[in-house]
Amino acid sequence: MLPEWVTQKCPEISADHREAAIARQAQLTKPTGALGRLEQLAIELAGLQATERPRAARVPIIIFAGDHGVVAQGVSAYPQAVTIAMMANFASGGAAISVLARELGSTLEVVDAGTLAEEAMPDIITDKPRHGTRDFSVEPALTPAELAFAFEAGQRAVARAKAHQPDLLIFGEMGIGNTTASAAIAASLLGIGAEEIAGSGTGVDAAGRAHKVRVIEAAIARHGVASASPENILCTVGGLEIAAISGAIIAAAQARIPVLIDGFIVSVAALAAVRLNPSCQPFLLPSHQSAEQGHRLVLRALNVQPLISLDLRLGEGSGAAIALPLVRSACALHNDMATFAQANVPDRPKAR
Amino acid sequence: MLPEWVTQKCPEISADHREAAIARQAQLTKPTGALGRLEQLAIELAGLQATERPRAARVPIIIFAGDHGVVAQGVSAYPQAVTIAMMANFASGGAAISVLARELGSTLEVVDAGTLAEEAMPDIITDKPRHGTRDFSVEPALTPAELAFAFEAGQRAVARAKAHQPDLLIFGEMGIGNTTASAAIAASLLGIGAEEIAGSGTGVDAAGRAHKVRVIEAAIARHGVASASPENILCTVGGLEIAAISGAIIAAAQARIPVLIDGFIVSVAALAAVRLNPSCQPFLLPSHQSAEQGHRLVLRALNVQPLISLDLRLGEGSGAAIALPLVRSACALHNDMATFAQANVPDRPKAR
Repeated sequence: MLPEWVTQKCPEISADHREAAIARQAQLTKPTGALGRLEQLAIELAGLQATERPRAARVPIIIFAGDHGVVAQGVSAYPQAVTIAMMANFASGGAAISVLARELGSTLEVVDAGTLAEEAMPDIITDKPRHGTRDFSVEPALTPAELAFAFEAGQRAVARAKAHQPDLLIFGEMGIGNTTASAAIAASLLGIGAEEIAGSGTGVDAAGRAHKVRVIEAAIARHGVASASPENILCTVGGLEIAAISGAIIAAAQARIPVLIDGFIVSVAALAAVRLNPSCQPFLLPSHQSAEQGHRLVLRALNVQPLISLDLRLGEGSGAAIALPLVRSACALHNDMATFAQANVPDRPKAR
Repeated sequence: MLPEWVTQKCPEISADHREAAIARQAQLTKPTGALGRLEQLAIELAGLQATERPRAARVPIIIFAGDHGVVAQGVSAYPQAVTIAMMANFASGGAAISVLARELGSTLEVVDAGTLAEEAMPDIITDKPRHGTRDFSVEPALTPAELAFAFEAGQRAVARAKAHQPDLLIFGEMGIGNTTASAAIAASLLGIGAEEIAGSGTGVDAAGRAHKVRVIEAAIARHGVASASPENILCTVGGLEIAAISGAIIAAAQARIPVLIDGFIVSVAALAAVRLNPSCQPFLLPSHQSAEQGHRLVLRALNVQPLISLDLRLGEGSGAAIALPLVRSACALHNDMATFAQANVPDRPKAR
């Protein structure tokens, strides 16, 4: 059983602050609507943060890493050892997300939520119920107790991040094999075939992708999880880092902290979170649409329209980090532009 | 006649630096291609700047303002006085581009390239051959000498900006009526109907847009400028701020400074620049696709694929400023990520 807090209701959007933000946008020195989606973003953020001045200044980034038993079936282009090596690269500052975190002035926390690492690693938080998932082509990936542990690891990470008084949060992931697990989760949650949703991941070729689709289809059939409960699906074909992100998203939303949703894997974790606790849905903010084939379908199911679509397919939270400056621009424009009255600029004649 | 420098050849892309950038991207700790268009952007920038470390740190923003005689025909939703009022708003820090310039750490220069302002304004550079263009529905907007003056005003602005050792430049515009002039220029350059290219500008309604289309079509027919020379088109239906931007783009490219191209009006100025001097084309970097109807067609003619499409339609250089952080991320990732060898991360097995 998942812990009770998972289904507790998230706060309501502040209708008053949302209305005030709409009114302010109409007074700024620009044609109404001329800042397009950035206006909408500032308005939504004002309602979510229940503030007159929406902010995206403090945005901690938390990466959850996990290994996947299904890698034994040859579903990835990279060796499994890359998961641990990349965790070290995150912590030592050489990975894409490390570079982006520095540029953004964000803290970067790396959580080993379930890799094969046998020992604690420097500058990495170990918070895992086991070393890697079981191979879901053979048996369920996780027990219910292991799944619950992963959700609580996500909640614990959010609790730590609160010390930084975050305006938003970005969650990222690392785990060789996790596009396979994510595609299996998404296919099961959405009740669609793996062929529609499984992509090339880090770069398998057409034959590799076809193999990946067959592995996923066989597992879904074997375990009978098509359209099963989210909890059942996550146990059967899930991943520890994915479950930790689902838990973290719910915990963040419950604390009124919006989450900038990264690519395919984080979006699948978000979809599972919304299925478990629909009240977290408004706290999901869009970032990018990745090159991974299934991302478009998952974003549509989340009712989230991406801000950018630049053929990114790296994970790590990098797409959300790349999109964050757009949210910051939306906030700066909303908060700092002059009104027509302040700047003594003639407004357009009112329609009669 | 336009001054001789306008057609002088721009520098070549450095093939060596471009190749070195491609090789570096393949060694960074990520699947090859996983950073999508940001990889391409860093590679192109390395070739354009002829450097191993492409940069987008110092990016001065220059706004050119001008008034348009054709406003007498009722083509805009806003009164003509807004041009001058917004120039003051740029300079005093309340406009969208003022806010964005502060966020980006960019200098913001405002050039009165041809507004109706009778006197010099504080913190604004006056560099104009006349006060506003003539009404092109009645007579040609500019004489050849006035057009040449505007090109040189653009060149002078780039010369001033060079003091800041710019990595890139952003040009913006302000001018009530300038979507009408821009649509007339684009329709004439591309040999297509105004109906295809004229949009709602700052927000005219359907009847207003239909009127705008009729005014443009009538002017193109009256002056016989469909598919005329770029110089003839710019004199007949152009604008002083638009011509200044065409000149500035050519001057920047000749100095090996890439330009981040803003929305509809700046893109039309860029199209005129490319028609006059095709060697400036590689120095045009994409930013956004605006909500203005014709922008898509002009970007296609420029062979530039936008980075973002957020329904912006404000001008001022704001779309380019909003997109700049994406270029900065591309540079930071290219320059600062670790290689597989440095980070001791196993690469994928090489294809045999």
